[in-house]
Amino acid sequence: MRPYDIIKKKRDGYSLTKDELSAFLTAYLKNEIPDYQISAFLMAVFFKGMTKEETVSLTEVMLDAGSRIDLSDIQGHKIDKHSTGGVGDKVSLILVPLMASAGIIVPMMSGRGLGHTGGTVDKLESIPGFRTALSVSEFKEALSRIRCAMIGYSEEMSPLDKKLYALRDVTATIDSVPLITGSIMSKKLSEGIEGLVLDVKVGKGAFMKDMESARTLARSMVDIGNAFGVKTIAVITAMNEPLGMAVGNSLEVTEAIDCLKGNGPDDLMEVTLYIGALMLRVAGIEADIEEGKKRLAQLIEDGSALRKFRELIELQGGNPQIVERPSLLPYACLTIDVLSEESGYIQSMDAEAIGIVSMILGAGRERIDSEIDPAAGIILKKKTGDFVEKDELLCSLCTSDEEVAEKTRVAFLDAVKFGDSPPEKKLMIIEVIE
Amino acid sequence: MRPYDIIKKKRDGYSLTKDELSAFLTAYLKNEIPDYQISAFLMAVFFKGMTKEETVSLTEVMLDAGSRIDLSDIQGHKIDKHSTGGVGDKVSLILVPLMASAGIIVPMMSGRGLGHTGGTVDKLESIPGFRTALSVSEFKEALSRIRCAMIGYSEEMSPLDKKLYALRDVTATIDSVPLITGSIMSKKLSEGIEGLVLDVKVGKGAFMKDMESARTLARSMVDIGNAFGVKTIAVITAMNEPLGMAVGNSLEVTEAIDCLKGNGPDDLMEVTLYIGALMLRVAGIEADIEEGKKRLAQLIEDGSALRKFRELIELQGGNPQIVERPSLLPYACLTIDVLSEESGYIQSMDAEAIGIVSMILGAGRERIDSEIDPAAGIILKKKTGDFVEKDELLCSLCTSDEEVAEKTRVAFLDAVKFGDSPPEKKLMIIEVIE
Repeated sequence: MRPYDIIKKKRDGYSLTKDELSAFLTAYLKNEIPDYQISAFLMAVFFKGMTKEETVSLTEVMLDAGSRIDLSDIQGHKIDKHSTGGVGDKVSLILVPLMASAGIIVPMMSGRGLGHTGGTVDKLESIPGFRTALSVSEFKEALSRIRCAMIGYSEEMSPLDKKLYALRDVTATIDSVPLITGSIMSKKLSEGIEGLVLDVKVGKGAFMKDMESARTLARSMVDIGNAFGVKTIAVITAMNEPLGMAVGNSLEVTEAIDCLKGNGPDDLMEVTLYIGALMLRVAGIEADIEEGKKRLAQLIEDGSALRKFRELIELQGGNPQIVERPSLLPYACLTIDVLSEESGYIQSMDAEAIGIVSMILGAGRERIDSEIDPAAGIILKKKTGDFVEKDELLCSLCTSDEEVAEKTRVAFLDAVKFGDSPPEKKLMIIEVIE
Repeated sequence: MRPYDIIKKKRDGYSLTKDELSAFLTAYLKNEIPDYQISAFLMAVFFKGMTKEETVSLTEVMLDAGSRIDLSDIQGHKIDKHSTGGVGDKVSLILVPLMASAGIIVPMMSGRGLGHTGGTVDKLESIPGFRTALSVSEFKEALSRIRCAMIGYSEEMSPLDKKLYALRDVTATIDSVPLITGSIMSKKLSEGIEGLVLDVKVGKGAFMKDMESARTLARSMVDIGNAFGVKTIAVITAMNEPLGMAVGNSLEVTEAIDCLKGNGPDDLMEVTLYIGALMLRVAGIEADIEEGKKRLAQLIEDGSALRKFRELIELQGGNPQIVERPSLLPYACLTIDVLSEESGYIQSMDAEAIGIVSMILGAGRERIDSEIDPAAGIILKKKTGDFVEKDELLCSLCTSDEEVAEKTRVAFLDAVKFGDSPPEKKLMIIEVIE
C-alpha cells in the first residue's frame, strides 16, 4: 500500500492493519516517507482516532523500532509509574526511592519538561553531578544493587517516538488519545516491567481538561498495557492547582526530600502514597490501598525511603549531601515576594497559568530546544482554601532573569482567585481505572 | 500567530482571518514554513472545512500570490467556462470556438489531466504544432484578433496553487470543497473575466460522486465567483458514463471537430449547447436557454464555429489542416476491438473504470510527472441504453503499448453492465445553481 493510500484509508475512517502501520512507520523511520505525508496522517488520526487493535499495533511498531531492556535476570517485582504531566508534580522523585525501600524494583525512565509542565529528568539534573544518561548495563547494575534507577529516554530506546513526537509537537497533533497512548506505552513497555501505575492528571493544569477525556486516555493506556501482558492500573488525579508547594526543578527536589523526611504537604503526600499503594497492589504484595499506604508511610517514618534516595543519588553520580543540606542545590539569585492585593479565601490557583509563570521564570521550556534554569521556579506560601490577608505573602518567585520579575508577579496574581468563603474541598484521587 | 497556532485554530474548528491565512500561506510560498505544517493544516481543513468568508480569503490570498491578466483594454463580454473534470469531456474544445463565433471573448486557461480524467491542455497538444504556452501579450493579441485563445496555467499565474496542489495530491487532501474552490476560482479569477459558467460533474466518473457534494461544491464556487464581482453560474451535469464516444487526446480533438461539423453525439451536444447558452445568459446576451441553444446550433450549422476553431489552431501554431483531415492527428499503432461477451441492453458504463482503462492505454497520467501518449484512448461504439448482440463491437482500444492490450480489454468489459430491458433514461443536465 502506498503512503497516500494509508493516509486516505485513515482519513476515511477505516482501520489500518498491523502490517500497514508497520510498513508506513518503519519506512518513515528510515526517511523513506517524507514528514509531510506523516503529518497529514497524524492529523487524520487526530480526527478519526484508532481502534484498540490499531493502538496495540501502533504501540508494537513503536516498541519494535527501538530496543527493549531485558530485566529477566533481575529477581523481584519490576513496577513503574508514569504521570501524564502536571505542575509541581514531583511524585516520581519521592516514589522511586520509597517503592525501592518497600522491596519493589523500579526501573524508571522519564522525559524532559515541555510547555507548562515539568519533566523528571530536568528535576534530577538540578542535583549537582547527577547522571540521567546511564548505559543499559549501568542501569541494570543500579537496579541489582539498590532496586531503583532513574534515567532519561534515550533515542535508541524509542527512535520512532522521538521522531513522531517532534513532528506532532509542531503540527498540533499531540492531543490524540491513540498517539499519546502509543508514545507513552511503547516507552514504558520497553523498560521490561511487569506492572505499571499510570497517574492521569485532569484539570486546568493537565493535558486532559475534563473527566471524559482523562477517562478515555486512562482506559486506552490500561487496555494497551494489559494487552502486552503488563498489569496496568490508572488513577485519575486532580491537577487544578500545582501539586505541593514547589514548582521548578531544584525547588521540587528540595520538596521531595522534605516529603521523604515526613514533612510533605498533604495533597502531594496523598497522591504519592495512593499511587505507591497501587504499585504494591499491582505487584501482588498488598491489595488493600489503606494497608499499602500505611506500610509506605512507615518506610518514610523510619528513614528507609530517604536513605534509598541518598543511595540513588550517589549511585548515579550526584552529590548525596544534598539530602542533608538542600542548600547545596542551585539557587536563584533573585527572589521576588508576591504579596496578596486582596484578602479572602483562595478559590482557585490556575495550575496552567502558574506553570507558564514558572516557565517564564526559567524553569521550563517553551520549545524542545530551550535551555532551562535549574534553580528557577515558585515557592507557594498559600494554596486553595487558605485564608489570606491583604499584603500577606502568597509566594516567592525565584529567577535569574530580572526582566521577567514584574511580568511574572502580575501573571501569578492573575492566576489566583479569591472569595468570601472557603471553596468546596476537592478530592485529589478521583477515580481508579483497572 | 505562529504556524502551529494557525493549524491548531483550524483543527479546533475556528475560523481564520484573512490576515492569518495570508501570513501563513505567503510564508509557505516563500519556503519559510515547511511542507509538514502545511499538510497538517490541509488535513485539518479537510475535516473542519472553511466558512464562506474564509474561502473568499483563501481565494484572494491565492489570487494575490500570482499575477492577473488585465483584459480591460479588450472590448466585449469576457466569459469563460470550467469543468470539474470527467471522462471524455471535450466540451471546452467545442465551446471556445463556438462562443467566440457568437461574439463572446473566451480567455480560457486550462490544466492537464490527472488520474482518470483528461485535461484540455493535453488534448490541444495532440494537435501538431499547437502551442498552449503563450505569453500574456500573445494571449491578449489572440483575444483581440479572434476573440478566443486556449492556454495552460503557468506557474507565475498561480504559484501558490501549484505548490499547494502538489502537496494535496500526495497527502489525500484533494477532495475538500474550500480547497477545490480556492484552487479553481483563484485561477479562473486571474483571467480577467466578467462571467463564468462552471460545469460541476456528478457521478461515477466525477470527483463528486453524489448530488449533495456536487451541490455543495457548486454553491461554494458560485458564491466565491460572485463575491469577487464575476457573474458565476454552475450547472451540475451527469458523469456516469464517458461523455460522447471518444476518450483520449487526439481522439477527442477528432470528435470535437465532428461536433463543430454538426455530427456530434447527443449527450455531448446537449451538455455543450446548454453550457454555451448559460454563457450567453451570463453575458447578458440571451437569458432564455432554449433561444441560446438555437442561436449556437445555428453557428455550427453555418460553419462559423468550425472556421473559428481553424483560426484558433492556426493562431496558436497548430496545423489547421487537421480540421479538414483529422487523420493528420497522431494515431495509435495498435487497435484492439473489444467484442461483447453477452447480449442485452447496456445498463451502465462505469466512467471512472473506463477513464482508468484509457489512462493505462497511455492517454492519461497516473502521477503528475507521467508521460502521456497523445494518440492513445478509446473509441466507443455503444453507449448506455444501446442493445448489443454477443460478439458485437463495443469499442476500439487505441494504444502503442502491446502489453496492456489484454488487461485493458478485460477491464473495459468489466466496466459495462448488461440487462434484459433498456435502462431508465437519465438526464444530462441535472441542476442549475446561480
